[in-house]
Amino acid sequence: MIFFEDVAVGAEVALGSFAFEAEDIKRFARLYDPQAFHLDEEAAKASHFGGLCASGWHTASVWMKLMIADAERAAAAARARGERPARLGPSPGFKDLKWLKPVFAGDMLTYASTVVDKRVSASRPGWGLVTTHNRAENAAGERVFEFVATVFWERSPG
Amino acid sequence: MIFFEDVAVGAEVALGSFAFEAEDIKRFARLYDPQAFHLDEEAAKASHFGGLCASGWHTASVWMKLMIADAERAAAAARARGERPARLGPSPGFKDLKWLKPVFAGDMLTYASTVVDKRVSASRPGWGLVTTHNRAENAAGERVFEFVATVFWERSPG
Repeated sequence: MIFFEDVAVGAEVALGSFAFEAEDIKRFARLYDPQAFHLDEEAAKASHFGGLCASGWHTASVWMKLMIADAERAAAAARARGERPARLGPSPGFKDLKWLKPVFAGDMLTYASTVVDKRVSASRPGWGLVTTHNRAENAAGERVFEFVATVFWERSPG
Repeated sequence: MIFFEDVAVGAEVALGSFAFEAEDIKRFARLYDPQAFHLDEEAAKASHFGGLCASGWHTASVWMKLMIADAERAAAAARARGERPARLGPSPGFKDLKWLKPVFAGDMLTYASTVVDKRVSASRPGWGLVTTHNRAENAAGERVFEFVATVFWERSPG
């Protein structure tokens, strides 16, 4: 993790890809979103989606999984350089979350994040706020999911 | 489920409560948000949260779980009256999601939803759009989570 001072507005991070397998889709749905088109292939075919597809909250949760994996890679790289990685703070909130197209069983989504704004926090000394635009595309290049996140980001101790 | 025409702006629905147990918090975190304060009690005590707490996406996913359970209860009640329940359509998106306070292991959250707007869909004949303000409070009555949702809602066939 780099510190707030090193975050560049406009920087884009490729967060990696995730394949939404039918069993994963159903497992998430049984726990958190038990609608027929997330649970059962046949019922999904008869629905307005036309096939088994992931809960929107599943698509969002996978973004978090990939974001944390990316942060851990960056922290490991910082440690390898002999530097202390920056701490990532909590998020005051997210905006404009859109599920643009269904994510079907077997779909591979590729997630990315672009820094769109940064500012020093007025309320928390030692921290900044970084705003990112986050999105996922399917293998056809169609954007299926997006939202705008703001997170606290540690300022350089220097 | 009632039809779009019967949805009243200002109506509030109690969605019920959910207890965030430590094992549930860790299970969700291992899959989607593997940060130390969601995975391990001791590491969480040393973090800025001060204790094991739920992933924000877990808090959101439980809202979905309770919303679906409420919709199923309403659909069963409609069928018991000899009526066809309205279909609930997909969501074009959510806005202004805020995680206001940590949700700690053992916390019981109570979720509620208030209709704040409704309008006929210009793009989908037979459907309206209903906007709700959704929130969760802990046992101390503190709001910990909120967001604004818009969903497609079936119009009355009559």
